[in-house]
Amino acid sequence: MTFTPGTFWPAEQAAMTRALELAVTPGVPLGPNPRVGCVLLDDTGATVAEGYHRGAGTAHAEADALAHAGEAARGTTAVVTLEPCNHTGRTGPCSQALVAAGVRRVVFAQEDPNPVARGGADTLRAAGIEVESGLLAAEAREVNRVWTFATDHQRPFVTWKFATTLDGRSAAADGTSRWVSGTAARRDTHRLRALCDVMLVGTNTVAVDHPRLSVRDDDDQPLALQPLRVVMGERDLADHGLDLHLRTRDPVTALKELFARDRQHVFLEGGPTLAAAFLRAGLVDEIVTYVAPMLLGAGSAAVADLGISTIAGALRPTVTDITVLPGIEGEEPNIRLTMTPQGA
Amino acid sequence: MTFTPGTFWPAEQAAMTRALELAVTPGVPLGPNPRVGCVLLDDTGATVAEGYHRGAGTAHAEADALAHAGEAARGTTAVVTLEPCNHTGRTGPCSQALVAAGVRRVVFAQEDPNPVARGGADTLRAAGIEVESGLLAAEAREVNRVWTFATDHQRPFVTWKFATTLDGRSAAADGTSRWVSGTAARRDTHRLRALCDVMLVGTNTVAVDHPRLSVRDDDDQPLALQPLRVVMGERDLADHGLDLHLRTRDPVTALKELFARDRQHVFLEGGPTLAAAFLRAGLVDEIVTYVAPMLLGAGSAAVADLGISTIAGALRPTVTDITVLPGIEGEEPNIRLTMTPQGA
Repeated sequence: MTFTPGTFWPAEQAAMTRALELAVTPGVPLGPNPRVGCVLLDDTGATVAEGYHRGAGTAHAEADALAHAGEAARGTTAVVTLEPCNHTGRTGPCSQALVAAGVRRVVFAQEDPNPVARGGADTLRAAGIEVESGLLAAEAREVNRVWTFATDHQRPFVTWKFATTLDGRSAAADGTSRWVSGTAARRDTHRLRALCDVMLVGTNTVAVDHPRLSVRDDDDQPLALQPLRVVMGERDLADHGLDLHLRTRDPVTALKELFARDRQHVFLEGGPTLAAAFLRAGLVDEIVTYVAPMLLGAGSAAVADLGISTIAGALRPTVTDITVLPGIEGEEPNIRLTMTPQGA
Repeated sequence: MTFTPGTFWPAEQAAMTRALELAVTPGVPLGPNPRVGCVLLDDTGATVAEGYHRGAGTAHAEADALAHAGEAARGTTAVVTLEPCNHTGRTGPCSQALVAAGVRRVVFAQEDPNPVARGGADTLRAAGIEVESGLLAAEAREVNRVWTFATDHQRPFVTWKFATTLDGRSAAADGTSRWVSGTAARRDTHRLRALCDVMLVGTNTVAVDHPRLSVRDDDDQPLALQPLRVVMGERDLADHGLDLHLRTRDPVTALKELFARDRQHVFLEGGPTLAAAFLRAGLVDEIVTYVAPMLLGAGSAAVADLGISTIAGALRPTVTDITVLPGIEGEEPNIRLTMTPQGA
């Protein structure tokens, strides 16, 4: 069987879909590494072995598949969701492992955006292996949306979440805020928190609310793996009870420090002042808003002054999703909007 | 064929469904009268004639159907969505017209809640006509939801509409508010306005905004039939340009005056202060909110102080509908929530 350069065999398309499924295998812990899946095909298009990456320090997806295949890897086509890496980190470079195993052809989806790791395709071609790329690339980028963003921008992706009443209040006039959101929205928030690796609040929120910032399941039990709980701000805190205090008010500095700690996804849940600082700095990449069908007429504004004085200057994010969360236990539904700020 | 009291013949059920369709015939102007449809069936269940009411001053649905049937009305079953009226208004009582036409049986859906008009069923029975009621009664009440409410409560039904940004603003800090809502939401608002017979604002809104309060179609052309444009408040207005100035601040008084003018559905679009007065008086029966995915951070609050100081006191209306209005011409979607205040 011969291949025309720039085209994909139907079995490769099916294998890439399978590799994407492998990449997002449930139970794989989120970490600094991208999620990757790999399928080895023989020259009839049958699957020889599958593999996926289980998190930092474990085998990459290609190595996992090669280990399963053993000698049967020779002459196969490796279908992999990300360009094989070209560097030695905690594991060796995948490009060389594929060459050593005698793989004949490599089809990958997304090019590696990581300046340290890229170059795998060139190494493979130099070793005489056929290489094709771009198959289901958009889907692959979506699987590693946050990792791709963080690698491209060299800082964590920032999701700002706020809950509001229909009239824009996050708490009543006396400060009471439990609960503006309904049970369904609070559970949904914990599911989103679990997808991040940093939860970030400001010193004022810590001083006033002493938040636990733990991620809990639907039965209110803490998950085994928790995001890093971070407070930022210059104010001294005697006993913040969190994992890290970044002594800066500057979002740029805070994100730089977090990225240096291999963190890629910040869930910003601080008060309106902290959110406004990130918004004004253009460092909010995603906004998640829970709207509760409730009116207060007074109380804390959900969003602080953004320096916008006229309607023409309004922040008009692009809506990527609107989901109605049905009320639980007789509660009213809440609405979740997911948005991308202009220019983000 | 004989009828068991309290039961309905299958043809009557089909006829009632048809009568409800006739009641809501497009193009019938809204007015103080309920929408009513009528179908006359012969004793094989075949339709002899149909009729519906076309608005105040025209024939009632029963009279319309009887006129179409002529002599063929004798011996028929009249299937009608509302209890035939028993009083002489601008037209004669339908109960007597049905008797005079020789109708043998009358099946109606909703009992007449109007204390002046009710009693038709008794008149029919006294004349020896079989009468059954309650067939598709809930559907019939829904067709005349506002009329039924107004008749029951002896005041107009009040729909309060407000548009807000995600952070509860109705205008920016400099007062600019065109447009918080997108094109789709503005068009939708005009469709809702067209279902009402009063548009109500406060003197402050008139003094500041000089609103036209005209109901316009999707091409921005005014509709032929317009709701009464009313301003309320004690402040003198040199030239308000509207149809009526009610010189009171009291929602109860205003609604009483409007009901005395045969008005049944008030669309409350005044500023937050007027809305708060109606809310505090328990005189909002429906809330329609348009949420625009926009942030201002400052500006006019969409809702004024409601005297609520703690989260436990929040107004938590029951949500009856959430609709996403897709953006038009590149705009972002808006969300429309329809709600019923607690206790309303």
